[in-house]
Amino acid sequence: MAKLTSRSEDYSKWYNELVVKADLAENSGVRGSMVIKPYGYAIWEKMRDEMDRKFKETGHVNAYFPLFVPKSLFEAEEKNAEGFAKECAVVTHYRLKNDPDNPGKLIVDPEAKLEEELIVRPTSEAIIWNTYKGWIQSYRDLPILINQWANVVRWEMRTRLFLRTSEFLWQEGHTAHATKDEAVEEAEKMNNVYADFAENFMAMPVVQGLKTPSERFAGADETYCIEALMQDGKALQAGTSHFLGQNFAKAFDVKFTNKEGKIEHAWATSWGTSTRLMGALIMTHSDDFGLVLPPTLAPIQVVIVPIFKGEEQLNQISEVALEIQNKLKLKGISVKFDNDTQNKPGWKFAEYELKGVPLRIAMGPRDLENKSVEIARRDNLTKETRPLEGLDSYIEDLLKTIQKDMYTKAFEFRKDNITKVNSYDEFKKVLEEKPGFIYAHWDGTAEEEEQIKEETKATIRCIPLDDDVEEGVSLISGKPSKRRVLFAKAY
Amino acid sequence: MAKLTSRSEDYSKWYNELVVKADLAENSGVRGSMVIKPYGYAIWEKMRDEMDRKFKETGHVNAYFPLFVPKSLFEAEEKNAEGFAKECAVVTHYRLKNDPDNPGKLIVDPEAKLEEELIVRPTSEAIIWNTYKGWIQSYRDLPILINQWANVVRWEMRTRLFLRTSEFLWQEGHTAHATKDEAVEEAEKMNNVYADFAENFMAMPVVQGLKTPSERFAGADETYCIEALMQDGKALQAGTSHFLGQNFAKAFDVKFTNKEGKIEHAWATSWGTSTRLMGALIMTHSDDFGLVLPPTLAPIQVVIVPIFKGEEQLNQISEVALEIQNKLKLKGISVKFDNDTQNKPGWKFAEYELKGVPLRIAMGPRDLENKSVEIARRDNLTKETRPLEGLDSYIEDLLKTIQKDMYTKAFEFRKDNITKVNSYDEFKKVLEEKPGFIYAHWDGTAEEEEQIKEETKATIRCIPLDDDVEEGVSLISGKPSKRRVLFAKAY
Repeated sequence: MAKLTSRSEDYSKWYNELVVKADLAENSGVRGSMVIKPYGYAIWEKMRDEMDRKFKETGHVNAYFPLFVPKSLFEAEEKNAEGFAKECAVVTHYRLKNDPDNPGKLIVDPEAKLEEELIVRPTSEAIIWNTYKGWIQSYRDLPILINQWANVVRWEMRTRLFLRTSEFLWQEGHTAHATKDEAVEEAEKMNNVYADFAENFMAMPVVQGLKTPSERFAGADETYCIEALMQDGKALQAGTSHFLGQNFAKAFDVKFTNKEGKIEHAWATSWGTSTRLMGALIMTHSDDFGLVLPPTLAPIQVVIVPIFKGEEQLNQISEVALEIQNKLKLKGISVKFDNDTQNKPGWKFAEYELKGVPLRIAMGPRDLENKSVEIARRDNLTKETRPLEGLDSYIEDLLKTIQKDMYTKAFEFRKDNITKVNSYDEFKKVLEEKPGFIYAHWDGTAEEEEQIKEETKATIRCIPLDDDVEEGVSLISGKPSKRRVLFAKAY
Repeated sequence: MAKLTSRSEDYSKWYNELVVKADLAENSGVRGSMVIKPYGYAIWEKMRDEMDRKFKETGHVNAYFPLFVPKSLFEAEEKNAEGFAKECAVVTHYRLKNDPDNPGKLIVDPEAKLEEELIVRPTSEAIIWNTYKGWIQSYRDLPILINQWANVVRWEMRTRLFLRTSEFLWQEGHTAHATKDEAVEEAEKMNNVYADFAENFMAMPVVQGLKTPSERFAGADETYCIEALMQDGKALQAGTSHFLGQNFAKAFDVKFTNKEGKIEHAWATSWGTSTRLMGALIMTHSDDFGLVLPPTLAPIQVVIVPIFKGEEQLNQISEVALEIQNKLKLKGISVKFDNDTQNKPGWKFAEYELKGVPLRIAMGPRDLENKSVEIARRDNLTKETRPLEGLDSYIEDLLKTIQKDMYTKAFEFRKDNITKVNSYDEFKKVLEEKPGFIYAHWDGTAEEEEQIKEETKATIRCIPLDDDVEEGVSLISGKPSKRRVLFAKAY
């Protein structure tokens, strides 16, 4: 197996190679659409199941709304429509027919033209609020707390596996509330759920914050987000939660009678995370040998590799290995015993490193004699010899340790790559020499934000929600600023 | 709440009303597409999770393939293309723009016309076999055992909630094998998995069989199916499993080197079930009061309704009810305690009957005194008084009994509605007077099959796979037949 391009050599190439070689995903025959391969999908399933559990725990239920949005609904909320009109797939016909000029070929049947074009959903606010209209009459019908797992399509011109694809999988929460406060609280709550998931499940530290008006979701009054820092110093928006005000309720005429008997428009939120998180996971933890997966997300948590000459040795080792496997399974740990005889141990070691299996247990004749095994950690590449006795508990604890250590490592990396700067020159210098998160003062105007973006390609990732408030003057205009905001180049 | 139309009055109307009133689904603003509401989706999630477990248990893994199929791939397997060309949604453009004549409105941007049209997948054989081409070189790459959970679109002219919708949710398994025998075995195995799921999880008896050539999936060499009988005597195809031969491997040039070093085309299967199963579930068990759900699929298995006057009584009852709830939850039973004070017990009784909750526990002051509760079964509408002591174990057993009884009831119904007929006159008479499954002889020709369909609207649902073989002569042509086949009018 050819080695991966190293990260220092070409980070972008390393990423693309890794996604394909680790069997996570590949480009398809459809422009900009990916195939998520079984190993990649198994990781996504684990993300999905954990998020789904968290959504249900916070009172949400799942439902399913149509893939197609009629153009008249799509354009109802003007800002939202404007934001997505330039990148949407449009269904115009509902039938093909035989091509009279080319036997065996098909052409669009011009007689099967739709009266109204259908947009393949890039997001579902329009179709969902058009539905909520029928569900909401009284404050007693509120709140509505619904989530949907679905595919969406945004016609991206430049695509990259997981990070930016024309079709992607995601979840989108859509809630309706009787009061503004309740909706704002919901948007904040779900951003917290995302942060909790990212940090405790993906072992990926995130900064929670608010988007600036120019970076908000099209149609939102406020966008909350979680921002993560990748190994190459670029930021990745890992999840967003929007307070939509009454914009969609007004566009779709969703009114209810409140407790006081007055009629008003409902308040809305929406929030989403997508298969983009797979990209974030890869670029937070992986190394030049391949994937590094936190135990919580690893489809295989432990692999046992026998080292043997001949069938008799394999049989002896297998007996012990299967016992270890059973004990670990009882603890809910997923274990693969790789007794394949075609591939050499060295090949297997490299393969499971590439696939990011958190722990590898190797066992040879001498281990058999000593009643021990060799354990190798994927995250820090250390090895140790451990006795068979108590191995299952040891491994159970070790997996927890790995999870923590991976978070700590990523957290330390981020700490080392956040720089506070006080002048525009310094800002540009840091971006050049040590890219990462930059905390700097901003005057609050779209003009300054735009100028910085134009000149440096760095954007305001968010206005952090933490308490680290410090007054100063903004980078370019020199106007007063009440707190630093988070800049970075971003995926 | 207005009562449901009764089944005897108008079965079709009863079905449509029930789906909407029980909050399962509703029609959307998109022609032929439905909204699956949270309660309906919760039932579908249970179906999905159980099937997914069974697929994984039989060695399958999940993956995800693109929604869009480029026209050139779509038309590659001719029979498959022909089968779906007349009902497919076609994406022709990738952008909207502002309508210069109507401010605030959007139109399709003619400059954003796709070079090649994209078909919204009606099924994924084409896109998947185009992908498998890159995955299969040697017999060592086989078998590939993949399943996908996805949405698909078939442009149906006449739609009905769950039974026939333009967009629906489904799973589609797509496997590749080195030999014909292995592929046939896979197709049979998955049909068995479907039958097992239908009978043991949905409490719905099914007949396993083979489709006639004219009823086969477009592109299949053989289609296995499970057929269920609805309460109105119509059949419903609940799942299909196809042996695809080498048709797709040839269309997409998927070849591999076999063990003997020779190059040959791979063998394929595909198999699917969809949200149509929701319709089957409803029409197998439900009654004039509403849904009847088997305990395995009920989002709420037990509801506790307090019967009280005043807050003090409610508090007393609540104490006991919460204890019951906790004990049942420990046994993995989902329980709702409905202590809402707005709605009267009678209203609640009707509501949970409509929603098909398998068991209702009612508790009033006298029950409190007697340390007892009233238990009502949804399936057979019987009631009994039971002591609090040992209630949790009693209910656990009772839920299993209900599951069995529901299957038995449906099985008995089917037995009573299978008629063996030996002449065409008898056939037509039975269809008229007592519609259901009809076992009759067929001469094996498409002509006789077509004539019967034309004249009676009954189709051959399947050639059963059971051992009940009995020779005879066919209905119209009078030619010899080796076994009876299963006829019915169908959904």
